[in-house]
Amino acid sequence: MEIKHPTLLLDTDRCKANIKFMVERAEKHNLSLKPHFKTHQSRKTGEWFREAGISGITVSSIAMAEYFSSAGWKDITIAFPANILAADQLNALAEKADLTILLDNKVTPGLLNRKLKNPVNVLVELDAGSRRTGLEAENHILIKEVVNIVKASDHLRFGGFYSHFGHTYSCRGKEQVRQVFSQSLEKINKMMETCGYDNVALHIGDTPGCSLAEAFPGITALTPGNFVFYDVMQQNIGSCNYDNIAVAMACPVVSKNSGRKEVCLHGGAVHFSKDNIKSGDEIIFGQLVHLSENGIGEVIEDARIVAVSQEHGIVRLPAELFEKIQIGDVVGVLPIHSCLTAECMGVYHDFSGNVIDHL
Amino acid sequence: MEIKHPTLLLDTDRCKANIKFMVERAEKHNLSLKPHFKTHQSRKTGEWFREAGISGITVSSIAMAEYFSSAGWKDITIAFPANILAADQLNALAEKADLTILLDNKVTPGLLNRKLKNPVNVLVELDAGSRRTGLEAENHILIKEVVNIVKASDHLRFGGFYSHFGHTYSCRGKEQVRQVFSQSLEKINKMMETCGYDNVALHIGDTPGCSLAEAFPGITALTPGNFVFYDVMQQNIGSCNYDNIAVAMACPVVSKNSGRKEVCLHGGAVHFSKDNIKSGDEIIFGQLVHLSENGIGEVIEDARIVAVSQEHGIVRLPAELFEKIQIGDVVGVLPIHSCLTAECMGVYHDFSGNVIDHL
Repeated sequence: MEIKHPTLLLDTDRCKANIKFMVERAEKHNLSLKPHFKTHQSRKTGEWFREAGISGITVSSIAMAEYFSSAGWKDITIAFPANILAADQLNALAEKADLTILLDNKVTPGLLNRKLKNPVNVLVELDAGSRRTGLEAENHILIKEVVNIVKASDHLRFGGFYSHFGHTYSCRGKEQVRQVFSQSLEKINKMMETCGYDNVALHIGDTPGCSLAEAFPGITALTPGNFVFYDVMQQNIGSCNYDNIAVAMACPVVSKNSGRKEVCLHGGAVHFSKDNIKSGDEIIFGQLVHLSENGIGEVIEDARIVAVSQEHGIVRLPAELFEKIQIGDVVGVLPIHSCLTAECMGVYHDFSGNVIDHL
Repeated sequence: MEIKHPTLLLDTDRCKANIKFMVERAEKHNLSLKPHFKTHQSRKTGEWFREAGISGITVSSIAMAEYFSSAGWKDITIAFPANILAADQLNALAEKADLTILLDNKVTPGLLNRKLKNPVNVLVELDAGSRRTGLEAENHILIKEVVNIVKASDHLRFGGFYSHFGHTYSCRGKEQVRQVFSQSLEKINKMMETCGYDNVALHIGDTPGCSLAEAFPGITALTPGNFVFYDVMQQNIGSCNYDNIAVAMACPVVSKNSGRKEVCLHGGAVHFSKDNIKSGDEIIFGQLVHLSENGIGEVIEDARIVAVSQEHGIVRLPAELFEKIQIGDVVGVLPIHSCLTAECMGVYHDFSGNVIDHL
């Protein structure tokens, strides 16, 4: 494939191996897997999940739910606090799919119930430490109030609980992830036991936890998303190795600065997003990697994007490597956060040059 | 207009006032204005520039050059180091437009000259302290070498110099911006004088400097872009006031957490980008603002987005304000970096509900 501009490449072998890995983990632990499709947002990638036996999915917006509903998915959870302003679209979706929404407060259920025409399943969202959305898992009284409001609503069907352990993203190393995951889960199990929610569904979905945890007590479904591609952030956390990362940007080299041993790539914030991680003393926006004809290769040590602006990506290099990279070359870059990079690019190419869709 | 989802609103009055402001500044100082269209990337917004007398524009990618060329723009500068892999597209553009490209090294001119079929104007890019791309303004020998290579190339026409004083973005306050701008300009003027580039074009383009500088010695054209909308980052630098900011996101309120006095908006990294600024002890991703039927209103003090994930934006509020904002409300948010927010959204609406294009 001839590459002239920043191009997001999808290594289908790695991606399918990641899907297989998580499907097998879920099977081993007797869990359902309802993968989050917010990372790939791709019907084609969704087909690979379907071929692996998956029938239920998770998304993070109504637009994504519509995209996958029209691709034939029937069991869809929108893992975002329900937006009452979009009740019309929820009604339309609920006619075509077995729709599940999240609620995390006492106000939305009543407002929504008045606008809904079709029954919608509800997972009550819990916060076990991520401090984003969800009812604090320790607040048993409030949780019971919300569950009871849901149960008393004609069009809402209480289906259990959902929690995203987003705080595993600040962990470093497998053991720390496992510890945070199991402590968070313990809070929820304690609440469910104390409040008498014994045979109730529990969906849990962070990629670090789902990739690494050794036990999943009380959980009925895993809903991770990022694992389908992984990325440098997940490698940094310890969730995966570099050679599990299934997407790489191919970027033209447009300029070199021999004084600073920096090369400028066409590949900036509009391609990668501005997400970054701290690595040693540096903030990095991408990790250089070898690309072969058939897929993503080994990472190139000490070769990272250290600054991005709208279209520019600046890579600082050791002297020897600096001499090897020439203007007019195309270099591979592993993204820091694959969800946002895929969202920025809006399309993938596989290594045979086929276009793979993105919402 | 009924808003159900994150919607990027363009206050056309403010935008046209910003255009007028910069057109008048350029006129006052006898400068050409070749505004950078990377911020708005909008043909409609381009028409407002045309109505204000503008005929030459700056863009940051070949895709943008193509978009505006097909809208009838004839004088286009691609302010990004020329990408030799895309020579075919440069050839096609040069047939339709008076095309100017940037070069900042000794390698690209030769490679490009072999592939070009039509004459293309060249501005040699200089680095006066931004440390991104461009030849260091102090490196007179290298600058002369590059200019001479350009001059000796059949298809390249040396047209002068270009520099983006990106380092004004780390300034705080008008005086500091003016100082960095004039020191940077001085370096370039010294080089031009020493090397004998007396009657040569000089294009300079950062929004802080172009908004605030009081003198522009040696400059022939201003090429700022962000001023068309401005944003919270520019307000923070001192380039503009809040009431100059011409775009705001309208975001549904989907959840409230009374313990933390936080509300959750539908409005996250895929809408705003992850660009942020430090404000006191906080990192902020957006500034809440009143929206009226006709345009953007006053900012809401102490009301900022303090965290974003893919779709979520978390706003922390003083107690009194927290009580006033309800689930189902739509709140306005000024973006930190309007270029990236516009790029994420890909479309605008004016306050009458008309769609305004974005590449």
